[in-house]
Amino acid sequence: METISVGLVGVTGYTGMELARILATHPVLRLVRATSRAEAGKSLAALYPFLQGFPIGDVPVTEPEAADLAAACRLVFLAVPHGAAMDYAAELLAAGLSVVDLSADFRLADASVYASWYGLPHRHPDLLAQAVYGLPELYAGRIRTAKLTANPGCYPTSIILGLAPALAAGLVETDGIVADSKSGASGAGRKAAVPTLFCEVHDSFRAYNLGKHRHTPEIEQELSKLAGADITVSFNPHLLPVDRGILSTIYTRLVREMPVEEIHALYDKHYADKPWVRVLPLGKLPETRFVRGTMFCDIGLVVDPRTRRLVIVSAIDNLCRGSSGMAVASANLMCGLPVDTGLHFAPMMP
Amino acid sequence: METISVGLVGVTGYTGMELARILATHPVLRLVRATSRAEAGKSLAALYPFLQGFPIGDVPVTEPEAADLAAACRLVFLAVPHGAAMDYAAELLAAGLSVVDLSADFRLADASVYASWYGLPHRHPDLLAQAVYGLPELYAGRIRTAKLTANPGCYPTSIILGLAPALAAGLVETDGIVADSKSGASGAGRKAAVPTLFCEVHDSFRAYNLGKHRHTPEIEQELSKLAGADITVSFNPHLLPVDRGILSTIYTRLVREMPVEEIHALYDKHYADKPWVRVLPLGKLPETRFVRGTMFCDIGLVVDPRTRRLVIVSAIDNLCRGSSGMAVASANLMCGLPVDTGLHFAPMMP
Amino acid sequence: METISVGLVGVTGYTGMELARILATHPVLRLVRATSRAEAGKSLAALYPFLQGFPIGDVPVTEPEAADLAAACRLVFLAVPHGAAMDYAAELLAAGLSVVDLSADFRLADASVYASWYGLPHRHPDLLAQAVYGLPELYAGRIRTAKLTANPGCYPTSIILGLAPALAAGLVETDGIVADSKSGASGAGRKAAVPTLFCEVHDSFRAYNLGKHRHTPEIEQELSKLAGADITVSFNPHLLPVDRGILSTIYTRLVREMPVEEIHALYDKHYADKPWVRVLPLGKLPETRFVRGTMFCDIGLVVDPRTRRLVIVSAIDNLCRGSSGMAVASANLMCGLPVDTGLHFAPMMP
Amino acid sequence: METISVGLVGVTGYTGMELARILATHPVLRLVRATSRAEAGKSLAALYPFLQGFPIGDVPVTEPEAADLAAACRLVFLAVPHGAAMDYAAELLAAGLSVVDLSADFRLADASVYASWYGLPHRHPDLLAQAVYGLPELYAGRIRTAKLTANPGCYPTSIILGLAPALAAGLVETDGIVADSKSGASGAGRKAAVPTLFCEVHDSFRAYNLGKHRHTPEIEQELSKLAGADITVSFNPHLLPVDRGILSTIYTRLVREMPVEEIHALYDKHYADKPWVRVLPLGKLPETRFVRGTMFCDIGLVVDPRTRRLVIVSAIDNLCRGSSGMAVASANLMCGLPVDTGLHFAPMMP
Repeated sequence: METISVGLVGVTGYTGMELARILATHPVLRLVRATSRAEAGKSLAALYPFLQGFPIGDVPVTEPEAADLAAACRLVFLAVPHGAAMDYAAELLAAGLSVVDLSADFRLADASVYASWYGLPHRHPDLLAQAVYGLPELYAGRIRTAKLTANPGCYPTSIILGLAPALAAGLVETDGIVADSKSGASGAGRKAAVPTLFCEVHDSFRAYNLGKHRHTPEIEQELSKLAGADITVSFNPHLLPVDRGILSTIYTRLVREMPVEEIHALYDKHYADKPWVRVLPLGKLPETRFVRGTMFCDIGLVVDPRTRRLVIVSAIDNLCRGSSGMAVASANLMCGLPVDTGLHFAPMMP
Repeated sequence: METISVGLVGVTGYTGMELARILATHPVLRLVRATSRAEAGKSLAALYPFLQGFPIGDVPVTEPEAADLAAACRLVFLAVPHGAAMDYAAELLAAGLSVVDLSADFRLADASVYASWYGLPHRHPDLLAQAVYGLPELYAGRIRTAKLTANPGCYPTSIILGLAPALAAGLVETDGIVADSKSGASGAGRKAAVPTLFCEVHDSFRAYNLGKHRHTPEIEQELSKLAGADITVSFNPHLLPVDRGILSTIYTRLVREMPVEEIHALYDKHYADKPWVRVLPLGKLPETRFVRGTMFCDIGLVVDPRTRRLVIVSAIDNLCRGSSGMAVASANLMCGLPVDTGLHFAPMMP
Repeated sequence: METISVGLVGVTGYTGMELARILATHPVLRLVRATSRAEAGKSLAALYPFLQGFPIGDVPVTEPEAADLAAACRLVFLAVPHGAAMDYAAELLAAGLSVVDLSADFRLADASVYASWYGLPHRHPDLLAQAVYGLPELYAGRIRTAKLTANPGCYPTSIILGLAPALAAGLVETDGIVADSKSGASGAGRKAAVPTLFCEVHDSFRAYNLGKHRHTPEIEQELSKLAGADITVSFNPHLLPVDRGILSTIYTRLVREMPVEEIHALYDKHYADKPWVRVLPLGKLPETRFVRGTMFCDIGLVVDPRTRRLVIVSAIDNLCRGSSGMAVASANLMCGLPVDTGLHFAPMMP
Repeated sequence: METISVGLVGVTGYTGMELARILATHPVLRLVRATSRAEAGKSLAALYPFLQGFPIGDVPVTEPEAADLAAACRLVFLAVPHGAAMDYAAELLAAGLSVVDLSADFRLADASVYASWYGLPHRHPDLLAQAVYGLPELYAGRIRTAKLTANPGCYPTSIILGLAPALAAGLVETDGIVADSKSGASGAGRKAAVPTLFCEVHDSFRAYNLGKHRHTPEIEQELSKLAGADITVSFNPHLLPVDRGILSTIYTRLVREMPVEEIHALYDKHYADKPWVRVLPLGKLPETRFVRGTMFCDIGLVVDPRTRRLVIVSAIDNLCRGSSGMAVASANLMCGLPVDTGLHFAPMMP
């Protein structure tokens, strides 16, 4: 098959690293540019010894320059912090490239919501209308024709996929939903910082940013669309001493008593043609290791008749499914490839 | 100071091991009997090399025999599974000893509730009335005169202490409370079993027994007393890849809008004379490592004005505060000692 | 491409689980039988929820029966304990199948050495002559025509590959070699046992079986062949609190002073056409995560001029490269496929 | 008992943190000053929430000023990097204080050795003669009268205690000793840095600084004194994914064949009056968790008759025994207290 040349802006973080892992064995997308101001001049394999022996290891790390990227690539992944990504996107789009932005810069349709949660004004609000939220289970059709995809946040991916069938079918009250989410430390990024040192995270557990995490408006935007009603959610993240993985325990209240079998059947049907969402058999619950290194979102369903709660447990790999793998899925679609090209990973167990 | 001789039935589990650690440096309680059918004949130090060099290491492991325990001890800790503990307790009480039972056998006042959640009839329902629930912050006075203390469960300890001030003051709705609890693997016990092997737990995370965990009725019994109303709680445990520690994130709804500072002040006051409960300053949240190896229960408070929720985060060490340390606190009281004798542990960080 | 039907005897251990992971995405080898006495009757996906959604998940778990395997398969992997494997092998070979044995039963050419280290007599010593030691870097040619491959041990793989160039070139003294090896807990197997419970391994580190591990004679057999001299090695295993990975630090003494650059060049040349062995650039040292989930053996070289020691550090994934992946490599060769078919894994980082 | 006022320069690292943990419950030494330029103005409890509720939590963090320390303290612990410590020590000694320096600045008797391994000249070589190497098993008598104690390095502590009896008795060859040491990540300090982030250390293992670690000359200095001969050692550190703990596997060659029982008896006798060194029974090997949070150094002995090697395994807690706890032991002696005052920790298991 002919290859398609792609670039990666920001290779030194965990999402950049994961993109490199995935593209190392992708049959069509060929990484030809990887940029980092700090590491420019090295080869990728010199930066990441684990890539030695792969052709991708020979890719030189360069300074990020739009003209150079435009000349060399058809599509570019942006794996830089929010705030920085929007300018790259504008410039690369102007140069005719397709862009998959892994940051939050184009996820929120409303620029004022962005400004209030991210604490800075959006410098390219005009691009928001053309950006497609890159969740393939919801928007595959639109991603296929998009020039700019906003890659969903990791927490939102787990929560939206977990709630979508219940909200779309009107099974649960739209008020009072609580999502208690737990994420591995790779979600905190690869910045040198004391709070994410090994000895600050290992053999411990903590909550953070309760009710205030920036993924909240993105979750509410998508859940509201699914429910056809304004949804305010209590979203509460925690930090797990694991490398990868998000498990969200989502507490809802059923609008009426319902046997769990009926709900399970409805979920099964909802995701019948979405092979990456695995509705586990009743009695089984997701574990982050079941999805490690993969594109799967595993969902477990429990009804607690004592409280009439439907408890939905969903698990993803935050780096693969929740970030870089999903970005490649969008890139696949934007390049006319099957969505799962190069993404057939079986979970690493243990 | 004169020593007081105590015994330990069931030394091979993690709660027995933790009792040994604590008693190894206790200034008054002196372990003179440690029993295990499987390991009888060894010294404690031969069983547990980490006790070599402590006088407690010389204690011989013996078969559990009531007459022998009665002759040698004034008080006995029962660290055996529920179902097995009740008969030991009856026998030892009949022989005149004081008993601290670490199992669930005497926690529930209602024998029929016990039977329905634990799946076996209570063989000594007559003893339930005299058993005191050994949570010192709530029942120190009664423990002091008790002959039989039912050591609280680890999850209940974190949840009851977290909710007590809010419920006692009527701050939150009694309906709809959700406790999302995460426990280290020592809570699962020391039985040889595939699901708790290192490679099944490490670098992963899972939920289990959602809405069905046996600690539920114990939580509801105590919360209902505190609230003066029947409380049904949605209790949902998860397994953390850490050795020790429970962190419970408790979701409540405020009965009316209230500034978090007011709630914080109320908590501070409620626990003013309870040094083991540390209400953290606003803006700080508990971490399980902050309480590692100690008797503390750390509490963090967050109000989310968007959802009018009061989110309470509480953290304990499940083995020390949530089990063996609390058992020693009860033993201290039952022996006329200050509650904190031998329990002045500072958290091990990191 | 046409598929080739293979079977797996013993699916419930970590090597069986890893074989399932690898075969789930293998383009040619198609698992048609997976056996386990304990789990017979389930589908593989029911046993391993992480395989849901893969065709391999539909494979039924059956009782191990030679006739059934012979009828259905061309090649069978034996992932059962040593002692049990040899009889299966004999029976399946007699039925005309090819066999890759992951146990130790056919690794040692001398049945008396087997008997003395494994504590049981070899019941099929006649098969030893035809068994090929399945290390592809050393024996690819012979594996291609073998009917019975003895899959190397995980520790030996890391040590033999680390020492081969130095011994073959006569760089180091053959006396006094020390291998200090550290392995992840998956190497200990998936048997329910207290010493490998999470809380017995996590946040701790220990040595075991110093100088007495059963992999010793296998290491010495292969090193002696490489050196053309009898080698006695001091092999010392340790247990790491990680899931996967072996790192061996190998201490040798140079026969004469040599610049490390010269040794590095020699290693590079030795492994020039062996893509799975990556000799890292001078100054870089292996890390187990660099090879996680892959077939790589990474080698780092250090010369300590103060002691004239050449220190060789080698790292593999014990489950993939050190066991199931290598078994698939042998199966590939035995089935006439390129050795790396279905084994193009990039390391999962982090 | 009357308290003795002490100060701590450098409270933000792991050794400072561990000193705070230990001093929080010390019956005599009372921390009255804790310094940090970055955190000055806070209370210790504000810096370290885990100290809330301890009197030590009220100690204010101040700028390090010699005059202030001299006025308030009788002894000062220096927990600042090498290079910085020597000036503080000089100044505080001149002001009449006793000093326990946790850095490497006063460990090496020869200033030129210091300069060559640490890459900077010693600015106070005159103080080297009066500095006592603070290993209580070797130098308790001299520490008692010292004004300046050089707290040993963590790796050297494990290796020197492991080898001392064998070298003192002339059991092993002094040439060719190899120490393969593995340390928890707290040994790398609490500086924000990518290589010690959780996701760079967790579920992985690596060697570093093979043959070049700065603890080498310190090890050789002390081993040479013990052996009465110049010893060059091959010292090779590795990074474990654990918080605390060092396990050193030390490879020696016996000068003549000897039964291990004889060696064990010799070790037992050597350490008979040193309660912190626990020679484990034959057949048992140290585990880092057996010494977690304590002052113990556990030693296991193995003789491999095939290679005539005596393999010595020693384990300590790098932060407590290997650093801050040992510093407190020296301070105890320097203040006329029993060496183990406030140091009666039983290991935390699990």
